[in-house]
Amino acid sequence: MNFKSEMNEKKLYIDSELDRFIPAESEYPQIIFKAMRYSVFAGGKRVRPIILLASCELFGGDVDKAVPFACAMEMIHTYSLIHDDLPAIDNDNFRRGRLTNHKAFGENIAILAGDALLSHAFEVMSKAVADNPEPALAKAMYTIANGAGVNGMLTGQVVDVISDGKKLNKETLDFIHINKTAAMIQASFKAGAYIGGGTQEDAEKLSMAGCKIGMAFQIQDDILDVTGSFEELGKPVFSDERNQKTTYVTLIGLDKSKEKVKTLSDEAIDILKNYGDKAGFLIELTKKLIDRKK
Amino acid sequence: MNFKSEMNEKKLYIDSELDRFIPAESEYPQIIFKAMRYSVFAGGKRVRPIILLASCELFGGDVDKAVPFACAMEMIHTYSLIHDDLPAIDNDNFRRGRLTNHKAFGENIAILAGDALLSHAFEVMSKAVADNPEPALAKAMYTIANGAGVNGMLTGQVVDVISDGKKLNKETLDFIHINKTAAMIQASFKAGAYIGGGTQEDAEKLSMAGCKIGMAFQIQDDILDVTGSFEELGKPVFSDERNQKTTYVTLIGLDKSKEKVKTLSDEAIDILKNYGDKAGFLIELTKKLIDRKK
Repeated sequence: MNFKSEMNEKKLYIDSELDRFIPAESEYPQIIFKAMRYSVFAGGKRVRPIILLASCELFGGDVDKAVPFACAMEMIHTYSLIHDDLPAIDNDNFRRGRLTNHKAFGENIAILAGDALLSHAFEVMSKAVADNPEPALAKAMYTIANGAGVNGMLTGQVVDVISDGKKLNKETLDFIHINKTAAMIQASFKAGAYIGGGTQEDAEKLSMAGCKIGMAFQIQDDILDVTGSFEELGKPVFSDERNQKTTYVTLIGLDKSKEKVKTLSDEAIDILKNYGDKAGFLIELTKKLIDRKK
Repeated sequence: MNFKSEMNEKKLYIDSELDRFIPAESEYPQIIFKAMRYSVFAGGKRVRPIILLASCELFGGDVDKAVPFACAMEMIHTYSLIHDDLPAIDNDNFRRGRLTNHKAFGENIAILAGDALLSHAFEVMSKAVADNPEPALAKAMYTIANGAGVNGMLTGQVVDVISDGKKLNKETLDFIHINKTAAMIQASFKAGAYIGGGTQEDAEKLSMAGCKIGMAFQIQDDILDVTGSFEELGKPVFSDERNQKTTYVTLIGLDKSKEKVKTLSDEAIDILKNYGDKAGFLIELTKKLIDRKK
């Protein structure tokens, strides 16, 4: 199967399982299920769950066993976007060309829809673990909880929020990128490795690859803000400069930022290459994620 | 040991374990750990975690194995209070005589502190499950996730929010009480039973007792609003009437509400009595919870 078909197949599988895991809009009280589904089915690329499934397959694991964890990963990602967009945090009115959750459903429902997705992610995972008490599944769940919480994404978001409008040093910027973005990419690789039957060493290696990919992805975001066009990105360019936001580009310049992306990307691919031909899909995905124009 | 000493001993144990599970205020970024701790250590009675520990002991289980789940229960309870108090939801400035979390730390940090406590609850539980792959622990975690999420507390909160200012029928009021309040009491009993080594039937029986206790507790709240005094409650009385809030008292009157509390309480105690003398502590606790003046 070629890369594009495999991406598409995985995305469709994840979408159909998300649809199965999240209660229908017709259930009572409808508004919360509408709000959860509005943001989960808003056109996300499913990068994290696809990585989790592919990482599981890298070790010959069964994707059916991994899919509740992959879907939980997407629910957690979506909750974080809904809460980030709230008036008290980023105060964004649009995401992916649609009204943000609180603009569509009101701030109270948006707060609760985020809470609901975070809770539901753990309900889905803990059900999978309770139904199949394989140690690897419990480890995968812990890995994801760890990536999402105060040792990961949540803390990155806190530092991002309290840094608003301040000039940052590279250490703080790295802290934000590593936690806010990379932690969940790492967790996707690592959880997938556990479920697939990889060793602790495999899980750590893939986690390291995930960290490099997450960092490269985020720096590429900073680069696109100055090199991309509104048409390509679907959002205003030079927004970081206007908002006086510290980015890799403002800290070390455009050329060095591009070099950094290249180095991180090469290092991540080198780790993946250790797994031979089976890693082809993940290597291709890494390239697509980093060499993107939007 | 008498009831009061046993309550106190359990509360101290839970407090010291919560202190151990939640990162210190000195850790980076300090503000989130300060905000989490501000609300967790705001003088809560630890009712849910105490029930969980006592329910575990009822089956001869080890409280050390149950305590991560008990603490997680309190973290989830606290997250729900922080988010309930937010300007977009109940807009409360005070809780237990202190500023609410968003009044003390700002709305952005309060949203994230709630998210952090919910995430951390699941991180603590999933670590316990990963460290000890006993099926009972995974079942306990699923029970708690289920009680907190879209099949429990969260949905109760949603219906409460969308019912604001509306006249409710008894069915809707019961839905709110069963989900918003009783679901987490039920989960405490049920999770404790699993961890302690109770059978599925035991877990279901205790869950039923928990549902009745949760309902009685909530109706007692409605009663105290019209029979209590400001001094006893530490909050304004007749607030439900002023806010034109539908309560058991407005729906079926004071006398019938008192009868209902008595019936529910008796039924719950009858279930607990099946476990003989060992259930003495839980029976006493049930009485204290329901026959309270504040």
